[in-house]
Parts: sequence; C-alpha cells; structure tokens
Amino acid sequence: MSPQRGIGREIHDFVAELYPLCRSITGEGLRTTLRHIQKRIPLTVHEIPTGTPVFDWTIPKEWNIRDAYIKDSNGKRVVDFQQSNLHVVSYSVPVHRQMSLDELKPHLFSLPDHPDWIPYRTSYYRESWGFCVSHKQLLTLRDDNYEVCIDSSLEAGHLSYGECYLNGEQEEEILISCHVCHPSLCNDNLSGVALGTLLAETLAHQPRRYSYRFLFLPVTVGAIAWLALNKAQTKKVRHGMVLTCVGDRGKLTYKRSRSGRVDIDRAAIHTLQHGGKDFSIQEFSPYGYDERQYCSPGFDLPVGCFMRTPNGCFQEYHTSADNLEFVTVESLADSYEKMSQILEIIERNETYVSLNQECEPQLGKKGLYRAPGSEENLALLWVLNLSDGRHSLLDIAERSGMVFGKIRKAADDLMEAGLIKPIGRS
Amino acid sequence: MSPQRGIGREIHDFVAELYPLCRSITGEGLRTTLRHIQKRIPLTVHEIPTGTPVFDWTIPKEWNIRDAYIKDSNGKRVVDFQQSNLHVVSYSVPVHRQMSLDELKPHLFSLPDHPDWIPYRTSYYRESWGFCVSHKQLLTLRDDNYEVCIDSSLEAGHLSYGECYLNGEQEEEILISCHVCHPSLCNDNLSGVALGTLLAETLAHQPRRYSYRFLFLPVTVGAIAWLALNKAQTKKVRHGMVLTCVGDRGKLTYKRSRSGRVDIDRAAIHTLQHGGKDFSIQEFSPYGYDERQYCSPGFDLPVGCFMRTPNGCFQEYHTSADNLEFVTVESLADSYEKMSQILEIIERNETYVSLNQECEPQLGKKGLYRAPGSEENLALLWVLNLSDGRHSLLDIAERSGMVFGKIRKAADDLMEAGLIKPIGRS
Amino acid sequence: MSPQRGIGREIHDFVAELYPLCRSITGEGLRTTLRHIQKRIPLTVHEIPTGTPVFDWTIPKEWNIRDAYIKDSNGKRVVDFQQSNLHVVSYSVPVHRQMSLDELKPHLFSLPDHPDWIPYRTSYYRESWGFCVSHKQLLTLRDDNYEVCIDSSLEAGHLSYGECYLNGEQEEEILISCHVCHPSLCNDNLSGVALGTLLAETLAHQPRRYSYRFLFLPVTVGAIAWLALNKAQTKKVRHGMVLTCVGDRGKLTYKRSRSGRVDIDRAAIHTLQHGGKDFSIQEFSPYGYDERQYCSPGFDLPVGCFMRTPNGCFQEYHTSADNLEFVTVESLADSYEKMSQILEIIERNETYVSLNQECEPQLGKKGLYRAPGSEENLALLWVLNLSDGRHSLLDIAERSGMVFGKIRKAADDLMEAGLIKPIGRS
Repeated sequence: MSPQRGIGREIHDFVAELYPLCRSITGEGLRTTLRHIQKRIPLTVHEIPTGTPVFDWTIPKEWNIRDAYIKDSNGKRVVDFQQSNLHVVSYSVPVHRQMSLDELKPHLFSLPDHPDWIPYRTSYYRESWGFCVSHKQLLTLRDDNYEVCIDSSLEAGHLSYGECYLNGEQEEEILISCHVCHPSLCNDNLSGVALGTLLAETLAHQPRRYSYRFLFLPVTVGAIAWLALNKAQTKKVRHGMVLTCVGDRGKLTYKRSRSGRVDIDRAAIHTLQHGGKDFSIQEFSPYGYDERQYCSPGFDLPVGCFMRTPNGCFQEYHTSADNLEFVTVESLADSYEKMSQILEIIERNETYVSLNQECEPQLGKKGLYRAPGSEENLALLWVLNLSDGRHSLLDIAERSGMVFGKIRKAADDLMEAGLIKPIGRS
Repeated sequence: MSPQRGIGREIHDFVAELYPLCRSITGEGLRTTLRHIQKRIPLTVHEIPTGTPVFDWTIPKEWNIRDAYIKDSNGKRVVDFQQSNLHVVSYSVPVHRQMSLDELKPHLFSLPDHPDWIPYRTSYYRESWGFCVSHKQLLTLRDDNYEVCIDSSLEAGHLSYGECYLNGEQEEEILISCHVCHPSLCNDNLSGVALGTLLAETLAHQPRRYSYRFLFLPVTVGAIAWLALNKAQTKKVRHGMVLTCVGDRGKLTYKRSRSGRVDIDRAAIHTLQHGGKDFSIQEFSPYGYDERQYCSPGFDLPVGCFMRTPNGCFQEYHTSADNLEFVTVESLADSYEKMSQILEIIERNETYVSLNQECEPQLGKKGLYRAPGSEENLALLWVLNLSDGRHSLLDIAERSGMVFGKIRKAADDLMEAGLIKPIGRS
Repeated sequence: MSPQRGIGREIHDFVAELYPLCRSITGEGLRTTLRHIQKRIPLTVHEIPTGTPVFDWTIPKEWNIRDAYIKDSNGKRVVDFQQSNLHVVSYSVPVHRQMSLDELKPHLFSLPDHPDWIPYRTSYYRESWGFCVSHKQLLTLRDDNYEVCIDSSLEAGHLSYGECYLNGEQEEEILISCHVCHPSLCNDNLSGVALGTLLAETLAHQPRRYSYRFLFLPVTVGAIAWLALNKAQTKKVRHGMVLTCVGDRGKLTYKRSRSGRVDIDRAAIHTLQHGGKDFSIQEFSPYGYDERQYCSPGFDLPVGCFMRTPNGCFQEYHTSADNLEFVTVESLADSYEKMSQILEIIERNETYVSLNQECEPQLGKKGLYRAPGSEENLALLWVLNLSDGRHSLLDIAERSGMVFGKIRKAADDLMEAGLIKPIGRS
C-alpha cells in the first residue's frame, strides 16, 4: 500500500470508529465523539450551558436518547433505533403510546424515490417527534395497534464542542472547522471530522509558522457560539477552511471565501489547478456550512470551504446511503494530500527582496548554474525578477504558471546562495 | 387580451394617431404632435426663437409645408405630398415651376434596391429642394413638361419641444428622451415617442422616489438646445435613457452610457439578462441618437439607449416601409414591460445594513423560516450577508445571480422583521 | 519590386554583408561588425576594459581567433574554421596538439537529429575548447592521429558595443536594443542588427519627437554593462524594444514588458491586431534576450521584445541552418513595416482637449462634413467625445476599435479646424 493510500485507510478507519455513535447538536453522542478525537490530538472540550445567549441565538436544551422503537401488536420491533440511529428524527421529544397506523403516519418519513434508504431528519428548533424509515418498510406496515416509544430527554444541559490549538512561531492563526453533529452519516460529517483530526495529528508533530485552531462543533449554533465567545480571538485568524464531504468519489470542489481573493482562496485554487485532476471552483454564497457564519459581514474571515461533492449535490446526501461504502480510501487520501499542499503553500509563502535588483546576478559563479531554459533555471529567474518586495512566492507561482513547490525550491536555493532575503512577515 | 398585450395595443394606437402628421425639426407638424402628447400627460411646450445660439449651433429657421406635387402635362399629380409626407425632402425650400424630366431628375430620390419604398431624406442645413419617390414610380416618369410645386416656407420662427416633469420624493432626476422630428416613420421615432408618453402616463399616477423628466424633442439640435438652456438642471440627472426603435420584431438592444458601468447600465442589463429572451448589449459609441449629446464629455450624463433593432440595422430604416405594420403590438408591449422593470430597479434599489452583522440571525423565530436552500431562503441569506452598507440590492442581485425582484422581496421581508435598515440615500 | 520589398532586400543584403564575420561577445569580429554599421548610421563605439565590474558581473577577457582546424594524418583539414566560423566553440582557449580520435571526441559537438547541420556553442565563462561539426562528418572520422589547432587568444582587452543616439524634440528616449555577438547566424542576431540599423538610418532623416538610442551590444554582459554605466540615462527611457529573430517565415510575436500594459505594449499589440496577419502575444517572462536585464526590478524599463519565431522555437535555432536562406526578404520587409508602425504610434500618440466639451460641434460648418456613419465621420466623433484630457489617441483607437492611423487623421483634421488642442506632453 502506498503511503498515500495508507493515510486514506487510516482516515477511513477513524470514520468507521465514529460511525455507530448517535450524534446530534448536543448530548452524549457528541461528547463520546469528542472523546474519540481526544485520543488522537490534544483536544479541549468546552461545555456551554443551555440558555446561554450567543448573538441572535440561544444554546438549546440538551437532547439525549437511549432507545426508540415501533412495536406491532405481536410485540415485534418493526422500527428499531438499535438498528440505525437515523430511524429517529433528531431532537424528538419523548413519547410512549399505543396508536393506530393512521395516527402514526404523520410522524413517519421516507424517500419514495429511494425506497431502500432511510432519510436523515432533524427537528432542532420545534418540539416534535418522528421516525424515519425506508419507503419499502413503510409500505409493509399494516393497520395495527402500534406501541410507539422514544426514550429521549430534552432538558437543560450543555452544548459541547472540541478545540485543538497548536501554537506556532506566530500568534496568527489558521482556523480549520468541521461540524460534528450528524449521526451515522459518513461523507457529510465524519469524513471532514476524520480529515481534520488526522491533519491536526500530523501538524502537531511538525514545526509550524502559524498557530492552528481546529474546531469540532455542531453546525450553525456551534460555530455561532464559538464566534460569540471568542470575538477577540477571531482577529488573529489569517486563513481558514471548513472541511466537509471529503470522502465521496466526486472531484474536489473549493468554495471561495466571501472576499474571494485572499491567500486561502489562491492557495486552494493553485493546488487544484496543479493537482492533475478534474476539480471545481465555486464562488462564495451564504449557504452551505459554517463558512456562512465565519463569513458573516461582521467577521468576514478569510475562510473557504474544502469538499468533494457539495451538500445536496449527491443523491445519498442526508440518507442512510451516505455510509462507509460511500466514502473511499482513495478519495480520503486525495483530500488529505491536497489539504496538506494547501497548508504547505500558506505556511511557506513568503515575500523576498532580491539583493541584485539591477540586472540578473551571475548565477554560475554562485553554484546556481542550471541549463538555460530548464524549469529550474526559469524558477530562479522568476524569483529574482519578481522579488522586488511586492510579490510573494504565491504571486510568482501564479504569474509564472509554475507549481508553488518549484518556486519555493528556487527561493530556498537563492536564500542559501545569499541572493535574496525575506521581508518582514506581515 | 392579456394586460401586457393591452398596453402594446394602446401604444400602437397612439403611434397610429401620430403617424399621418408631417413632422420635421421645426414647424406645425411638430407642434401638433406635441399637442397630441399633451392630451395624455402634463407637457410643457417650449418655443425657442430662430437664431438662438445653443453651444456651437444656432436654432434654424422654421419650416412649414402646406402642399407639394409634381403634375404632368395632363394636370395629373404624379407625385403628391397629400399621399405621403415622405414625398418631400424635409426642409425643402419653396419652388413652383415648369420643367422637363431632365431638369427635375437631380431633385428626385429613390431606392433602386427597394423599388416599392419611398426613401426619407432631409436637407436641414443646406437650402435645397427635392422629392422622394419609389423607384418603380421613378421609372414610369416619361419625358414631359412637369409642374413642380412645393408650397413650403422657411422663415424665422421657433423650434418647439415638449417637456413633462413629474416631481418625486427626491430632486434627483431620471431623464427620458425621445426624438420627435421624423414624419410618417413608425419604428424610428413614433415607437419611442409613444412608449415615452405611456410610461409618463403610468408614472404620473404612481409614487415616485426620483423625479422624472420626459423630453420630446427634435434630434440633435433639440437635445443640444435643451442642454444649452438647462445646464444647471443637468446636475440633477442621476439616470437617463434615450428611447428609440422600440417597436420592430427584433430583439431588445441596450447601448451602454459613455461610462458604461453606471446604475442605468446595470439595471438595463440585469433586466435583459433575466428577461428570458434573446437580447444584445452594445458598448457606447458617439454615434446614434441624442445619447451623443448627453454623453458629450462636458456633460457625461449616465444616459443609455434602449431600442430593439438599432438605427441603420433594419432595411426599412428611413423608408416608407417603416410603417404601422412594421411595429407590432407584442414588441411594443415587451419594450414597455422591460423599460418598466428597468425603472423599477432604479426606483427600488437601496443599500441596507443588517442589524446582525455577526452571524446569521435565527430566521425561524422572526417568522422568516423558508425551506433551507429554497430561492426565498437564499435571497434572505444573500441580503443579510451583503448588507454591510457597501452593497446595494442591485449589487446583491448581480453577485447572487438572482433576479432583482426576489432580492427586493427578501429585503422587504427583512425590513418588516426589523432585521435590516436602509442607509442614507446617496 | 514594391517599396516594401525594396527595404526587405536592403535589410537582407546587409545581413549577407555581416554574415561571414566571426563575432563573439568581445573581439575583432564584433568590432568589424560595428564598423559596418557605422558606415550607415552615426555610431559611437565604446570599449570597456576587461575586468571592469558591472553590477554582479565582470567584463571578461577579450577573445580573438585567427584560424582553427583538425588535420588528419595526411595533413588534410577535415574540420576547417575557414569554411565556417561555427566550427569552433566560441571562447575556445588556444590549443595545438596531436591527439587520437578518442582524445578528441569529448571536444566534438554535433546534432544527431539534424545530421547536416553544424551546431553553435559557446564557453564564455568556463575556459575550455571544442569543435562543432555536422553529425554526418563526425561519423566519417576514423581513428587517426589528428593535429588539432585553435589559433585563438583570450587576454585582457575590451568589450565593444555600438551606440547610435538620435536627438529629438524631447529628451525622453526610445531605446532599441539588438545583440550583435553571434557569428554566422542570420535570424538570431543579424536580422535584428540589420533591422535596427535600417530603422536608425530612416529615423536619422525624419523629424523626431522622441530621442532614440540604438544599442548594438553583446547579449547579457553587454546590456548589463550599458545599464551599469548609464544608470542616470535610463531614467529618460520612456519606451523600448529588443529586436531579434525578425527574418524567419513565422508570424510576428510580441512579448510584453514586465509591467505588461505600458504604451509600447499597447502600440505593438494594436499594430499586430490591425496588421491583417496572424500574430502572437506573449506575456513577459524573465527569460529570452536583453529584456531580462532592462526589465530587472531595479530598472523595470518599459521594454518589450519584437520578433517573429522566438528563440528556441525553430529547429534551425543556433545551428548552421539559421543561414541566409532561412531569413526572407518578405519577412524582413514585414518586420520593418510593423516596427515602423509601432514607432509611428508612439511618436504620434497625443492627448487632446476638445474645445466643444458640451455637445458636438456642428461639423458641417467647419468643413468637416463626412457621410453620417462613415468611418471618417465616426473617427471625428470618437476623437471629439473622448478628448476630455484623459484619453490619448491610442486610448481612443483601442476603445473605438479603429486603427490608430484613422484616429490620428481625424485628430489632425480637428486640429486644423481649431476644434481640439493638445494638452501638455507628459
């Protein structure tokens, strides 16, 4: 197995480890998930009490569930939460009653177009209850006297989220955010969570120019809570990325930040353009994942979104078919590799001044003779020509059409030869 | 008949009403036309004396014509002004003589490529006389002793133009200009005049944010005269449009203002892009209609030109074939509808500030729950995200790709819910 | 013969005159070449002593060669410098020894893919010696005892270059640079040298708004030396062009200056776009000819590069096949014509102010009546409309889409009619 496939396998295994847990935007499933992440990286778990105001929102009650089922008159569980946590509408209030099929039906949800799949539904901000079932199963339900039980609780408690901070040479931060509130769904949620965890694990053992903040939080209210409680901290965010849906077989997609032209946008696009595979660039829109909050006008953080097939653009989205087979070792490995390259550009981008502003230096006598017109020679000439203090290496890579790594290598060689020097980091 | 076709029929009827009148850049035909417009809208008729200097130009002598004909030796009118006012070259000096065909021929104009059509010719700034005839008719003229009569006068008098001012909440104006100096020509002239009249008629009965100034004037010298005599007033023109050739069967064409990127340009282009029909956008050029004068460098007014097929791009242009059949109820209705939409954008464009700059507000509790990802939901999110005081609704419509009306509706809903407030109007 | 072909023939003849001389970056061949140029234009020949520091470089030793050969054991010259000066690697140190084929082989260079062609090689900054031969000839060499002789000298001396300065109305300069250091190679070197010489010859007899500086210098070190010794002078360079490879049958290529949007770029691109032939525009890159030095960040001069097929993009490049047949009278004439047009735009570009900023003047009464909508009429209207002091004639030509000459003609007519006046030249 190639080293690349190796990391893909490791991410997939971690997805599989987290898959059975019944997560929601609050509760024990979420806490257990954070503990699994904590086994791998230094994660602080925060608990925000129910009722805490966070901007226009309020931390909701905590939801927990122990069991849920629909039993027929023979006492047989025809729908069983123990089989799939998708069977219960997330945030369902407790219920335990006998009822006819007619009474039950308004509480049953299925997908007629995909009769084998169980849909995923939530009812976060409106108290109700319900069951999700495959359409096939729905059709088998006869008129009967059913025992309907949801053994849940919806009470004052906490909203939990995890934060992994890795300090770097600089206080300026790179923010990486993943939502961690979906139950047994692999691409939309766990792939991003696992990729974020493994990236943090690798970065924890590397020298870091920037500090890193990895957030694992419930979508929307979690990000809003973090922003509300960390307003001062957000001033240090220089670059950021939301990770989601990074395991499916589709091509990579990068969705630009609100400003659309910041370094994270350019680093991501450069990486995809030089990645040798099909890819897609999306303009910013205020819909999607937590980039909606990070890019709200009062913050306008330089945060993009890294994914393969976007939310809502694959049929399996928010169904039981977004399972362990839907995410692949190869795609996870490719996502990891590309995200690493994006971070490498951000980390290693720098602006230099050539010490020979007037005409080229004589490279031969500096031990930098490369065949005229070779890529190595061109990279040296580009760095020398544009190192006027106004062009970063990323600028130079973009203008020359050469991949960042080769420009970076040329700059390293020129530094070593004493021909350029870095200007103060911004 | 649909309401839309209804307005098209009304415009066409008004074109038909004005069709028989013999207009020129001065004279009674022009005055009578203005009186017809005055029956519909509050129009002030201005009279500028011959000889008045207007920038580099001088108001010309007034031209009037009562009758004109060419009689053969049998006393038969072979060419008769009473049949078509196009038969006489506009501004022909009086003549009444006997002459041979050879003497007459240099004064006869026809279109060999369109043998059934009478051309339209003028001789405004060079004293001469002439007749326009169909080429077929020209070929039937035998050598004979002809009585040639043009019973016209070219004397000191006035240049007339009409002005309809509708005051609005603001002193800032929208200028709508139509030339009204062509005789029996329907698309090039009357379609614009009639569209302008009906737009003014509608606007007169609506609340108006902007004030409106509709000008009905002879082309070139009329616009120059208005600009020369109203220099101070031009400072109030925020948006403007020249209307011409809006009745033919061709697609809509918008010609940009000199600056090319002002609100009237953007509103017109947005309307055509979302109009569901083929259309054409032209860059500004200093040739065409009176946008030439409004967009001269000393004024550089934000004035575009709204038309269907541009001048010179249809064969019937400046011939008797530009008649009542050439302009259609459907095209006139479509032009009216699109111009109304353009003005609606200008009127209703506004810049807001979201009162929740930091993260999204919780729309559900404000009664603004819309299905996530639905167009209505997206429109709300776009307005919230870009209402940072630097983006107008038109900016938001352009960036989101959504039609202005939906963005406007979202802003109305958000205003009602107290989530945004307008910033001071510029 | 057309006048255009006439100039092409003259350039070709001058290429043929210079072809036999054995040029290098220093030495008598270079000096003799400059003397040939001096017969046509007022050329100052500068001599810079060996060892002079010029920025990061040092003027090298002067190389001269009298004879060179490889004789077989029968005393027959099997490789003979007198047959082609390409046979000796430029800057070869002297050698005179007997040696076996095995000893000789590391010093022999050929092109297996082009077995009839002799390659061109240099060894400027590393002392060595060698012979270039056709691959066919290489294969005929038997094992033998060869007499190898290079009767050269590499000693303290001078680097020579030629400078032709033509003063104009203004001190601001147009810099035209050609490298003149290649031996018997026609396209890469002599075509540029001959075009530069003939352009200077023509310009010497014309009124000139700008001053002109033509440089004929050895590539790289020559340009660096000129820049190092004339730093103050470079401040006066307003426009500049490197001429090279202008005689082959390929289409014209213009490579932009480092800034990429200066007047020389726009004039060159305008000329090629309106030239009626296929052409190519290249972005700047810090590889190629002496634009590398002129466009180094400390100078960043507005210098482009004018060529037909770029260096390295034709198979004959740096081989004996880049000969008198490879450059054609037609291509040389076309290059001359287009360069003349580019310089004409630079010379005749000007910014005017219309004296009728408010509305169009009445052109008819100024004797400027042109048929409405004719090209002549449009050109007048464009110049009037954009002559607001912020648009040059080149701006107007670009925006109108009309060729510069027609816009220039309209401006001349308007000047003569007293309708526009030039603003102060920058």
